[in-house]
Amino acid sequence: MSWGTALVGCGTVGGGTAGILTGSAKELKKRTGMDFPLLAVVDKDYTHARSLGLEPGILRPDLEEVLADPAVKVVIELAGGTGFAKTVVEKALDAGKHVVTANKALLATYGRELFARARARGLTIGFEASCAGAIPVVRTLAEDLVANRILGLAGIVNGTCNSILTDMGSSGLDYTAALKKAQQLGFAEADPFLDVSGTDSAHKLALLSAVAFGIWVDWKEIPLRGLEVVRTDDLAAAATKNARIKLLARAEAVAGGYRMSVEPSVIPLPQPLAALEGPFNGITVQGSETGLLYFQGRGAGARPTASAIVGDLAALAAGTSASTQKDYSCWPDKAVPTKPLADSESRGPWFVHGNGKAAEVVQGPTRAELEALGLRVFPWYEPKE
Amino acid sequence: MSWGTALVGCGTVGGGTAGILTGSAKELKKRTGMDFPLLAVVDKDYTHARSLGLEPGILRPDLEEVLADPAVKVVIELAGGTGFAKTVVEKALDAGKHVVTANKALLATYGRELFARARARGLTIGFEASCAGAIPVVRTLAEDLVANRILGLAGIVNGTCNSILTDMGSSGLDYTAALKKAQQLGFAEADPFLDVSGTDSAHKLALLSAVAFGIWVDWKEIPLRGLEVVRTDDLAAAATKNARIKLLARAEAVAGGYRMSVEPSVIPLPQPLAALEGPFNGITVQGSETGLLYFQGRGAGARPTASAIVGDLAALAAGTSASTQKDYSCWPDKAVPTKPLADSESRGPWFVHGNGKAAEVVQGPTRAELEALGLRVFPWYEPKE
Repeated sequence: MSWGTALVGCGTVGGGTAGILTGSAKELKKRTGMDFPLLAVVDKDYTHARSLGLEPGILRPDLEEVLADPAVKVVIELAGGTGFAKTVVEKALDAGKHVVTANKALLATYGRELFARARARGLTIGFEASCAGAIPVVRTLAEDLVANRILGLAGIVNGTCNSILTDMGSSGLDYTAALKKAQQLGFAEADPFLDVSGTDSAHKLALLSAVAFGIWVDWKEIPLRGLEVVRTDDLAAAATKNARIKLLARAEAVAGGYRMSVEPSVIPLPQPLAALEGPFNGITVQGSETGLLYFQGRGAGARPTASAIVGDLAALAAGTSASTQKDYSCWPDKAVPTKPLADSESRGPWFVHGNGKAAEVVQGPTRAELEALGLRVFPWYEPKE
Repeated sequence: MSWGTALVGCGTVGGGTAGILTGSAKELKKRTGMDFPLLAVVDKDYTHARSLGLEPGILRPDLEEVLADPAVKVVIELAGGTGFAKTVVEKALDAGKHVVTANKALLATYGRELFARARARGLTIGFEASCAGAIPVVRTLAEDLVANRILGLAGIVNGTCNSILTDMGSSGLDYTAALKKAQQLGFAEADPFLDVSGTDSAHKLALLSAVAFGIWVDWKEIPLRGLEVVRTDDLAAAATKNARIKLLARAEAVAGGYRMSVEPSVIPLPQPLAALEGPFNGITVQGSETGLLYFQGRGAGARPTASAIVGDLAALAAGTSASTQKDYSCWPDKAVPTKPLADSESRGPWFVHGNGKAAEVVQGPTRAELEALGLRVFPWYEPKE
């Protein structure tokens, strides 16, 4: 069976995907019994695509022409953003093409309508690559853990932020200086807002919460604090408790609803999330039957993300994804619109320090009550079995 | 759609599985759109089954009668061992039933013929629960990582051994005393041979290697050293290098073939496998595209194992497992019979100590050459990105 594929957007991840589809075609055929010929690369600018040595005939700039090609069965959307990318996905679905995407901003914003559109047309949207790169956490939550109520999930899902925090901890640089260094070294974008503000993590948390809990949360309603709140004395205070500060995206089923947040949080060693340094992702999942699970790997980069994209491509081709064409309730269009509980009601546990007091972990007061005492306050995350 | 299920063997894991199928039936229906009624529990002794409060009518001791029931679509084999369990699986397949099993000994020994039998009949054998319990490593290797050549995998896949080694490290007890304590506390079996010898880990490594590398290795040919080789001074020497000794099941693609072993190995912190304490499993997978991935969770126990069993059950019912009915080449009957490379040719890296020398890591000599110097020798495992 041949699954002709079109790539829209050929930047870093697009290049990695094209590299696997062309360079590993034989191995893919051997492993899956299927062919995935790359029939088209649609882009505004072919400088990068040309540098990859792709066959010139597949550089087809006319999206409409590509979507009208009956040999194209799947469109891989890697244009990014929520404007043109949305049009690409809509047009691809309307043309009867399955979609694979790594675009968390798009799905966190328009996931419900796009999934409904796919379902109505008997098509699939694969988005494993959108959350935690090479880690198959979407599939795991959607299918492998189907016997569980998910009680909570928490993850370091932005490698740029984790790199900056790791560097602040080891170098003693403050946030502004560490960010500047990361930009100079190419680890952080020229405009780092989506990463360092926690927005990218909130997009991923909204998507993962749909799959895990069957709830649909407007990502803008997830309480968000970015890296800018972290001071070097916070890192030092955490270290006195043998703990680390990480930008943690977290959702928990609690009495009365779901508590969600993206914010710098204090995690004690030897929790693997505390030990995770550099540009990696790590996710804990608490299942009602499994207990605590933990997954770690590369959350970004050309080849790790492309691995997830090609995994999705093979799954939808083989019919082995619990897609919109099965009766699974885990997808955005079936998730129940839900508001996260008010952040202000959380009673910890909190990591606090400052105002002449040694660092400690407290439970009971609200954040506002602690801040009124002049304390620095961060959530304390220590999952229990 | 209704997927009538029969359990054969109702011990610890069988009880956990029955508990999920009866107690979480509504949630399963909601998540998957399917019903999985538990129609039969086959056992020699119903003491445990009765203690679970199962409906008496489903306690059906006559296997032949259960297999003749057209409402039974899936047989969950939890009898254990390679004798009666093999008969159960063969008869179930011959009667047209899909099979889910947690039995690594059975599949590592007879996997090729049982998978061929399933394939010939258009049926599926699910075995996620047989390797690393709640961690979905079979699915991940078979499907999510399909874009990768797997370069290596290594895991702590026996929680009993990890508990004993953790206790030896913290209590200073020697192996014999720690084993006795684990037996008294119920963490180790009265006959602990399968666990502590590494045999159980070798079964799992043989199965995981089939899925990861497409090779079929006779588990008896995997070089095996058990916990009995570990002395308290080995643990202390490892600690001087900030490292831990773990029973590691390991397979690597190297020039000329595959190097495989199950043996106590030295792993430096902060590697998560080194930090893993107590009755847990952890697995690293090195993919050609993903780089290093790591998964951690409960590898045994009633509910964690049952979670994997019910995940398999749902996947085969939904048709979303890359089963023998798809053209995937990752299953035992399609794997290529392969002998692991001779252990004696490995040139490390090794962790060595003893004979008046400080502990160090060396590469180049063979194990025999180092042992001839009167040194204690263990493999050193430190996966690199």
